[in-house]
Order: sequence, then C-alpha cells, then structure tokens
Amino acid sequence: MPMDREVFERDFHRLFNPRSVAVVGASNLPGKWGFNMPLNMIGGGYRGELYMVNPREKRVLGFPAYPSLKDIDAEVDLAVIAIPARLVAEVLADAAAKGIRNAVIVSSNFSETGEEGARLERRVADIADGAGITIVGPNTMGIYSKTSSLCCLGAPVFPRKGSVGFVSQSGNLGVQLMTWGYRKGVGFSRFIGSGNAANTDISDWLEYLGDDPETDTIILYIEGIKDGRKFLEVARGITPRKPVIALKAGKGRQGERAVLSHSGSLAGPFELFRGAMEQAGIIEAETTEELVDLAAAFSSLPVPRGARVGVMTLGGGWGVAAADAFDREGLELAVLPDEVIGELDRFLPSFWSRRNPVDIVGNVQRGNHYRVIDALTACDEVDMVITMGTLLGRDFWIENMFKTAVRPFLNMVRHRIALLPFFQLSMWKGFRESLKRGGERNPEGSGGINPTEAWKWTDTALIRRLKRLMREKGKPIIAVAVNEGESSASFRMRNTGVFTATTPERAVRVAGKLARYSRFLASRS
Amino acid sequence: MPMDREVFERDFHRLFNPRSVAVVGASNLPGKWGFNMPLNMIGGGYRGELYMVNPREKRVLGFPAYPSLKDIDAEVDLAVIAIPARLVAEVLADAAAKGIRNAVIVSSNFSETGEEGARLERRVADIADGAGITIVGPNTMGIYSKTSSLCCLGAPVFPRKGSVGFVSQSGNLGVQLMTWGYRKGVGFSRFIGSGNAANTDISDWLEYLGDDPETDTIILYIEGIKDGRKFLEVARGITPRKPVIALKAGKGRQGERAVLSHSGSLAGPFELFRGAMEQAGIIEAETTEELVDLAAAFSSLPVPRGARVGVMTLGGGWGVAAADAFDREGLELAVLPDEVIGELDRFLPSFWSRRNPVDIVGNVQRGNHYRVIDALTACDEVDMVITMGTLLGRDFWIENMFKTAVRPFLNMVRHRIALLPFFQLSMWKGFRESLKRGGERNPEGSGGINPTEAWKWTDTALIRRLKRLMREKGKPIIAVAVNEGESSASFRMRNTGVFTATTPERAVRVAGKLARYSRFLASRS
Repeated sequence: MPMDREVFERDFHRLFNPRSVAVVGASNLPGKWGFNMPLNMIGGGYRGELYMVNPREKRVLGFPAYPSLKDIDAEVDLAVIAIPARLVAEVLADAAAKGIRNAVIVSSNFSETGEEGARLERRVADIADGAGITIVGPNTMGIYSKTSSLCCLGAPVFPRKGSVGFVSQSGNLGVQLMTWGYRKGVGFSRFIGSGNAANTDISDWLEYLGDDPETDTIILYIEGIKDGRKFLEVARGITPRKPVIALKAGKGRQGERAVLSHSGSLAGPFELFRGAMEQAGIIEAETTEELVDLAAAFSSLPVPRGARVGVMTLGGGWGVAAADAFDREGLELAVLPDEVIGELDRFLPSFWSRRNPVDIVGNVQRGNHYRVIDALTACDEVDMVITMGTLLGRDFWIENMFKTAVRPFLNMVRHRIALLPFFQLSMWKGFRESLKRGGERNPEGSGGINPTEAWKWTDTALIRRLKRLMREKGKPIIAVAVNEGESSASFRMRNTGVFTATTPERAVRVAGKLARYSRFLASRS
Repeated sequence: MPMDREVFERDFHRLFNPRSVAVVGASNLPGKWGFNMPLNMIGGGYRGELYMVNPREKRVLGFPAYPSLKDIDAEVDLAVIAIPARLVAEVLADAAAKGIRNAVIVSSNFSETGEEGARLERRVADIADGAGITIVGPNTMGIYSKTSSLCCLGAPVFPRKGSVGFVSQSGNLGVQLMTWGYRKGVGFSRFIGSGNAANTDISDWLEYLGDDPETDTIILYIEGIKDGRKFLEVARGITPRKPVIALKAGKGRQGERAVLSHSGSLAGPFELFRGAMEQAGIIEAETTEELVDLAAAFSSLPVPRGARVGVMTLGGGWGVAAADAFDREGLELAVLPDEVIGELDRFLPSFWSRRNPVDIVGNVQRGNHYRVIDALTACDEVDMVITMGTLLGRDFWIENMFKTAVRPFLNMVRHRIALLPFFQLSMWKGFRESLKRGGERNPEGSGGINPTEAWKWTDTALIRRLKRLMREKGKPIIAVAVNEGESSASFRMRNTGVFTATTPERAVRVAGKLARYSRFLASRS
C-alpha cells in the first residue's frame, strides 16, 4: 500500500539525532535484545537521555525502569521495541499517544513467518501510519547514526565514523559488513537495517541519504523492492551526484527461494533488475566482500575518465591474472604510445614486456617502480593505473627482514659456523658494492637493489606519491599488495584513507566498477 | 618438439633431493638472483653441499667461489644458473661435461622476448637434451622441495611443509601463492616454477607429482600447454586418486594477449580447454585466491557424496548470500525431511525459517548451534554442511569483550557516573538470572545466552566437534566466520588443519568444487 504510506511527513532528523531514546522490553539478561541494544548504545557513546521500560524490573542496566512508555514523564524522540510480536501494537498505541515519531521494532514473528504474522504487522503499520510514526522494522537489527553516536544495534558493532550511508534489508549481514568496514577502514554516516519495512520502502531511506550532507557514498543490500519504479526514480536523482552501490540478493532459483523465506520479499527476475539498475547509474556489487571493497574504493579514489587501464607488474603472472578479468569487467588494456615505450626502455632491463601490462621482470630498483607509475599516470591513453608488486606492506618488511637476514644468519651459526666470519664479510662487501653502483642500469639483469633509495621503499612514501598523482591527474591508481594479508591493506586504508587491493582480481573488479560509473556520468553530460 | 624430449630418462629424484647444489653467477650484491637464491637456500635450511661459481670473486656469501663448474672437484646434483642469457649455453656444456642431470636456469631474455631469444633457448635445450639434463626454466623463479628443505627460489619464501604439490607457469605468482599458503596454513611438498620450459612440459611435472608419495593434492597455474593430449592423459591417470586443481590463465581476448607477451604461450580457446579439464576430472580455480582456498579445502576436508547442502545461519541475510551462489556452482539446497524440521522445532524459537537454509534468527544459545549442525550432518538428504555465525574466532572474542563489557563500563564512568553502582548491580543480577534459567527455550524470543555452556563457545570446542562429525559421517562441514578477518581463519587452519571460510560466497565456491569432484569420482565407479 504505497499510497497510505505517503500521508504523513516523516521526521528522519529526529530518528538519526534523537535527544532521547526509550527501550521497551529493556532487560538485564545477557544475550536478549533488550539487554544488547541499550548496552551497545551506552558503549557506542550515545549522550542523549535513555529510558528503560520494563514493568517487572526496578532498574535495567542501572537506569530506573518505567512500567510503560506512558509513565515516562519527558519527551521521547525514538522508541526501541524489543518485546514479543503480539504485544507490539499496544506499545505502539502508547507511542502514538506520547507523540513519538520514530520506532525501531526489533521483534520478529511478523510477516516473515506467514499470514498470521502479516496480519499483526498490518495492524501495527496502521497504527503507525495513523499517528505519523516511521517504523524501522519490524524484524530489524536497528540503526546507526554518526552525528549522534547512536549505535542502536542488536550486535556489539561500533562503526567507524565516515561518509558511507548504508541501507540493508538484512540486519545481520548489515552489521557484519560494518564490522568488515571497521577493519578495512571504511567509515559510515548512517545505517538502516530496514527489516520487514512495515510502513517504509527502501526508496524512503535512499532519498534521505541522497540529501544527507554527511553521506557521500551510498551502499544498499537489497532483497526485494515494493515500488521498483519509485526506487529507480529516486536513484536517478542521486547517482549523478553520489555513487550508489547495490548488492542485489535473490539471484537464481535457489537464491529467490531463500529470500522468500527470509524477508518474505518476491525477488523477481534478477536480469531485469540488473538492467534497470544499470540504467539508473547504480553500481552493482556481486558479493558481500565486493560491496565493502567498492565502498572503500568509491569513497577514496577519483572517478576515471574512461576504461583504459595501464598495468604495472613486478612479475608477468600477476599481469596475466589481472588482464584475464578485463573482458568481463569491460576494461581495456591501454595501448601505450611509442614515446612511453621509449621512455621505459631507458631504465628497464632490455627484456621488459615492452607493452601493457608493463612487466618489469623482477626489477627491484624502487626508483624504477616510481618512474613507471609516473609515466603510466601521465600518459593520455591511460585512464587509470593498477600497480602490482610495488606496495609491500608491514607484513612484508617484518617477514623479509627475518627471512633475508635473520634466518640465513641463524642457519650459518647452526650448521656452517666455520663459514660465519666469511659470510659476514661477504655481506658487508656486497652492501658496499651496491652502494657504490647506486642502481646503475643493467640491461641484461636485475642490477640488484639500490640502498640509496631506501627511503622510497616504505608504503608511506609510495602512498604519498600515489595520492599526489591522483590529485594532479584525476586518475585512480589501485595498488595491489599481493605479498601480504588483508590486515595490511586494512591498516593502510585506515591510516592513509586510500583503497588498496590484496589480489589483482579484486583490483580489476573495482576498476571495472569505477569505469562503469564513469561511463554513466559521461552519458548524462 | 615433444619427440626429442623423450629421448632421455629424467632424474627427478635428485632434482628434488640434491646432495649438492652449485650456483653459477653467485653474487654478493643484494637483490641480484645470484645473491637471493643461495641466501634463500641457506635460510630455508638446505643441508647439502653448496658451491658458489663466480670467476670474479674469492668468496660469495662466505663460501669459497669457483671460477667455473668444471673447477668444482666434487659431484654436483643440481646447477642453478643466474647469468646473462647469452652465456648460459657454455655453462650448460660444462654441466654436461660434469654429468650434472638437473639445471634451474633463472636467466631471462630467452624465448619470452622474441625470435633471437628463442634461438638461444633452442640451442640450450639441444645441449641439455643431448646430455640428459632436465632444465627447470629458463626464466624461472626456481623450485622448492620439502624432503630436502630446498628453497631454491628467487624470493624469500620458505613454504610451510605439507602435502600440496604445485606447478606454476609464473614464478612470481607461484611464490606469492606459497606465501599466501604459508599464512593460511597450506603446506607444500614440491613447487616447480616451470618458466619457459625449454625441454619439459607441464605433463612431466604433473606425472612426477602424481606418483610422488609426499604429494596428496596437486595445484597448477597454467598459461599454455604444448601437448594438450598428453597433459589430459596424464591428468586422467591421477585425478581418480588425487585431486588436481588448475587455474587456467589467458581467458578472454586481453588475457590471451597478456599470456603471449609473458610466457610466449598460445593460450587457445578457453572454453575448449575448460571442457577438456572437466572431462579429465581437473577442478578449475577461477581466481588466484580461490586456488589457495581450494588447496586448503581439498587437503583438509572429506569429499562429499553429492551436491545437496544443508545451510545453518545465525541471520537470514547470510543464508541468502550463500544460496545466491548455489545455481552457479551446481549445488542444491537440501530438502529437509519433516523429522528434521520437527527435531529443530523442539529447541529453536518458533519463528525460525523451518526450511533450508536453517535461519536460527539470532538464537545465541550455543548448544542449539551444535544441535542444528548435528541434525544437518546426520540427515541422509544432506551431503555437506555450511554453517555461518557459529564460528567466532579470536578477533570476535577480543573485540566482543571490549565492546560488551569494557566500553559500556567506561562510558558509564565518563558520562553517567552516578548510575555506575546500579549498572554493576543490574549486570550481576542479570548474570545470576541467566545462570538460573540455564538456556530454557523461549519460543517468542532469543532467551538470552546460557552461561553454563560457556565452554562450548570456543573455536576449539567447535572445530573438535566438526572434525569428529566429518570423520564419522564422511561429509565436509565448512564453517564460515563472517565476523572476523582473514587472519583468524588462517590461524585456525594452521592450528587445527581444518579449512574455514571468511565469506559465505567463498564457502559456497569451495563446496561447489568439492561437489564437482565428487560427481567426477562417481562417474568413474
């Protein structure tokens, strides 16, 4: 009934910036929703008033407990309801009487479980519509709002503050993606676990986030949409200004069935939906992991002007792994002009690939990595750059020091101790020699490392250079750190705010989506 | 010229178990191959004899330096050659004269760079063929062998010892995947970076690994195959006994081009190759990341009897994310018999999904998780189990303790200090109450946690249970730990030897490949 829902004006401002929150069904029992949610609000640093409602307790989590909403002798901006489904309607009537405009209804056992639950849900929605109450849920994990530090969530998740707005039709999945985001350095402005959406549709939230000055990038987890036309219309109004990224669930026969039993939504033919999304400029994420990657990338990289990619790789195999995904992602390996080839010829070993992907065949002279990245980014035929083997990461340094210095030394001591003085002498001699050579070009081989450029070997130096290049040229550069774990990439994102990838395939997928958005923007101008 | 290459009998035993290794082009200069490779052998713990060959040095890395191979007055099982391409033929002639049967040729600038390099490579191969020398390379990153602790590799990678044999047509990619494997707890028996494969083909290595008692699972990174018929014939002889997993590079137009410029191989139409691989029972990995996942899974999980999967999830969204990938992977959501539904009805909240995926709607009573997993694994309609939200991981515990206990406490101290004594009293009261209730069933809600089952909340308890179930029922159980990073899954694999996944989609992909292998095995019996 989309018509009915339009009769009242919503008060989203107070939903996301409540001066006071009442928790109905507040509990001292660990693990219950009425225990977890207020605890998470306290832990999250919410500073407004908190009222606990529980007729059987004197105090809940230290706060005085009220028998009902009506007994709270103060204004309440938001009611959080965590009681059995059959009792919700009555509480909502109380909320209406109190003039509360927003309710987060956590309770399950509504329309997701069948006809009886659906009837109950309609009754609750009718009361809400009549009283102008916006319901988040029922069957929701709650909401998050950066501006009020409101972690009104069923799970102990305190999102990183940032500019990504997130609407999720699965609460569990939503809060976990915020945890992934936390680790990966992705910050959120708002989160809405929309649940059964008794008197809202995803368009309502999308519209709000579209206008929200705290939100720069919007991500959606969608199982089903009630009013597809409206959704696309709202999206079309936002995508020219802010990227909107959606993971659509319920793909294929078995996915559709799973959606039906989860949120009761009819997923509908996915291919149709995909086409409509693309027309509206919505970026599609194919997996949960990709949704977080894209949130990180779109909120930290510039939008490219086209789909031509320059690839630099320390070893040919990674270049192939990247290029393999190009067709699928609609990307083009940029054709390098002769001038660029000639420029790279001047310092790379003679047997470098001499085309894109630029395979620098294990050349570890760091200055050369920089020169290749500079040349690719400056080239007019290149819209974006993927670089593999340049970014090394903390893990690499820690492990590398141990492996190339400590372990051989220990093994000399243990098994070939007579050689040890000669070993140390050799190392010292070699180090002095490479200092003297200072990275001179060796067309027939690697030439070894150049210790005088040691300062260039840190991630900080590289990322600083990439940031400057991206700003100057307006082209995204995606560094892939294949030689380290997820944690270093996350560490980097948290500390530098720049997205980096841990596999070539993931970098290419992100590049493909950036190119798609660029194509959409170009088609509109 | 596959004919020529068959004329001599190879000595793979001494290649992987050399009593002595000579490094031609050994160097004291950090970053050069002649420096890195012997250093990595020393660091890796190789205990055989090491000879350094360099006419311009007295000592290299502490070892006395010989002017040439001929000057070494002892038997040499393996020559490692890291000198400019144009000098290799002469060294190989020396090796032939010395009766050396195996050479790892690191040098680039051979057939991968064009016609001139190809001529040089043919000359080297001719010498080798004539003298019965097996060449690894040229243009290789080297080899690894568990039995001799031989890290004859260009990068500081000391693989974990295990049962996975690995042939990679890209050295760089190969050694990095072993690093990923190291982190993820995947151990290797042998590694061969086959490089330009001057007088070998991938079938030679595959055949060796097929017969190798140290190798239980074989993984391949393939860019091109010279003799496809022979490769498939060899594979067919192995796949009924050992899983063979292949990542085929050079997919699509741009991937093919990248392969051509990397190893000079003609990739050929991928779809044809894919069909042939499937017929031979080779499992296809689609990305580098998946190759490592599959190595971990196939070396640690039983092969299922079919493709019917039972899914348990703590929240519906993750169940949908998993089911979404089922069609694509050829998996079936198992249809649960009424008895199983009835059994689960007895302890789950009334609003659980009552079908597969078994959505236990946030029920955090740990004993119930166990009962669902037991019931699914015991069910005859289920060939394998995916469980999401049960596995919690170290990260979760560390974060959760902080978030549900420390942070709220600190915020009470900082902002609501007057409430603190009441807060502590409430917590204590709640804890005692839930001890008393002991996880009684609450059909209308979660019922809270049951502190008496605290011992069940550890990963160790869960994994122990899963291991026992897998052994008893011969069905793989893939636990997905969505609430934590890659590092915890790796930690678990390293410590328990059981593969776990970090996203539902990755779990489903692995399950799909297990089912495919099961189908192949069934088709043969």
